[in-house]
Amino acid sequence: MTDFTPLSFEEVIDRLSPAADTLILFHRNPDADAVGSAFAMKQVLADLGSRAWCVCSDEVPARLRFLTDGEQESVLPVSIPADFEVTRIVSVDTASPAQLGNLYELYKDRIDLMVDHHGMGEPYAHHYIRPDAAATGEIMFDLVKQLATEERVVITDALCTDLYAAISADTGGFRFSNVTSDTHLRAAELLASGIDCAEINHRLFDCKTQEQLRAQAAGISNLHLFADGKIAVVTFPYALKAALGLSDEHLDNLVDVARSLIGVEIAISIRQPKAEGLFRASVRASCDYDVAALCAKFGGGGHKRAAGCTIIAADMDDAMQKITSEIKI
Amino acid sequence: MTDFTPLSFEEVIDRLSPAADTLILFHRNPDADAVGSAFAMKQVLADLGSRAWCVCSDEVPARLRFLTDGEQESVLPVSIPADFEVTRIVSVDTASPAQLGNLYELYKDRIDLMVDHHGMGEPYAHHYIRPDAAATGEIMFDLVKQLATEERVVITDALCTDLYAAISADTGGFRFSNVTSDTHLRAAELLASGIDCAEINHRLFDCKTQEQLRAQAAGISNLHLFADGKIAVVTFPYALKAALGLSDEHLDNLVDVARSLIGVEIAISIRQPKAEGLFRASVRASCDYDVAALCAKFGGGGHKRAAGCTIIAADMDDAMQKITSEIKI
Repeated sequence: MTDFTPLSFEEVIDRLSPAADTLILFHRNPDADAVGSAFAMKQVLADLGSRAWCVCSDEVPARLRFLTDGEQESVLPVSIPADFEVTRIVSVDTASPAQLGNLYELYKDRIDLMVDHHGMGEPYAHHYIRPDAAATGEIMFDLVKQLATEERVVITDALCTDLYAAISADTGGFRFSNVTSDTHLRAAELLASGIDCAEINHRLFDCKTQEQLRAQAAGISNLHLFADGKIAVVTFPYALKAALGLSDEHLDNLVDVARSLIGVEIAISIRQPKAEGLFRASVRASCDYDVAALCAKFGGGGHKRAAGCTIIAADMDDAMQKITSEIKI
Repeated sequence: MTDFTPLSFEEVIDRLSPAADTLILFHRNPDADAVGSAFAMKQVLADLGSRAWCVCSDEVPARLRFLTDGEQESVLPVSIPADFEVTRIVSVDTASPAQLGNLYELYKDRIDLMVDHHGMGEPYAHHYIRPDAAATGEIMFDLVKQLATEERVVITDALCTDLYAAISADTGGFRFSNVTSDTHLRAAELLASGIDCAEINHRLFDCKTQEQLRAQAAGISNLHLFADGKIAVVTFPYALKAALGLSDEHLDNLVDVARSLIGVEIAISIRQPKAEGLFRASVRASCDYDVAALCAKFGGGGHKRAAGCTIIAADMDDAMQKITSEIKI
């Protein structure tokens, strides 16, 4: 088994510098940080004299195609050109083998470099991982800036768009606790290029599907308050999901409905994936309360302010009672 | 009638420098930019050796009280201390006499200085108005920075919180088109003080009332699409409002429901304030379409990307038909 070692910033640049046909892998179910960072990496490599091809196990969703270079919107492995001689493989924003999807089986022994900001991953190659970065886009920004200073990379609007979108998306539009002074300094430099941040943010954040909106409306009708309104629980029983013709992916952000209510400090969504006694809870805290510890009581986990678990219960009311009775605030 | 003249940055500092009991006025129905800028001004004046009192024609909403200094949460004119000898009056973030509410009648001839960023207002005093600023909080930041450089003002966490909240609120959390490089540079300096931006943004943006959530749910059920989904209209007839026990203030942000749907370029909300033939439309564009020109056809107006109008129509369907048939995209 290979030992995978951390690399320095300079070593990353050294590894990217020689001309080579390069695959850039990014994580399945890709988000704007993955797509933006991958296509920024492609532009960097092109300026350094390499051909590069971005690859993912899933298609880039239509709403994020503005981050690709337009000429090649297909990122599936089958779309790699026949004359492409893969001599270097790097991954961006992809913390673990599982996140590579079917790319892991295809390329696992040949990956030269991981560039990522997730601190809790499982390295599968030599890596440059910076958990202090709010987004992989922040690391790509630093690479671009260094190489632009050396006059080896040209900063274009497309590059700034990719980097800005990556950073804005992973920080909830600069609202989350991962935002630092440096995040804003990078955004300041990116906006100085003249890119339209409002247009980019609209594409990133105003993108609910009709099904997600219907789930949101139904969720609002199933909102329960506890502890003088400090705890809000939105419930979504299987029967409701079936009646509305929704699937689980449409319920992904349901906890935000509970979170958006004024005065709520702990927001919970509970959905019932199947017509049985397993209930899936997502919990968010906006106060100093450890929701990972709460979820651990049910065998789940996560971060201090965002966690999840599965509750075994007789019915939805029972599940709601079980989790809320564990919370003391 | 007095001629009101624009002042320079240096003249503003000169006018704020002498010690004097000062009233700081801010606009009715106050938002975070008004409250944050007013209480930042109060801290600046305190450091410059003046007593100051913040005054508004309306109470500060509970969710924004964290921006006041805690000792005096009441900003109504009746709460001004008896021993306070008003010798200077400044207003912040208040573009016109109407926005001062009942403060205008009380103080109209005695206002020494307006500090504001609204370009389309109606000056009622000598003024320092910078439409290039995304928020009055940005202008206050520049004042604070200059005075801190001169070692006349001390930068505190409370001051940074007020300024950050003012700027974040008026830029939709750094998402809107009024954000510039300088906005991010200011945010970078404010975060360097160590304030908790996630906590502040939670207070600013996760603050829907139950009535607003119920309105949102009902709005989602009344969403109509046109032009292959590029136009979305959310309708709210009077009967629905009455049946749900809602008032017009709960429908203020209804257009955001239409805006949040993927693919929508022109978002419209139409509500019927009374059981009669007047329909109130709010319109938002996220493409290059002039909604102010659209609304002007119905006697309304606004900005290019955000405007409103009142439509005279037989019923809601007629109102919707009237406005959508005018749009060519």
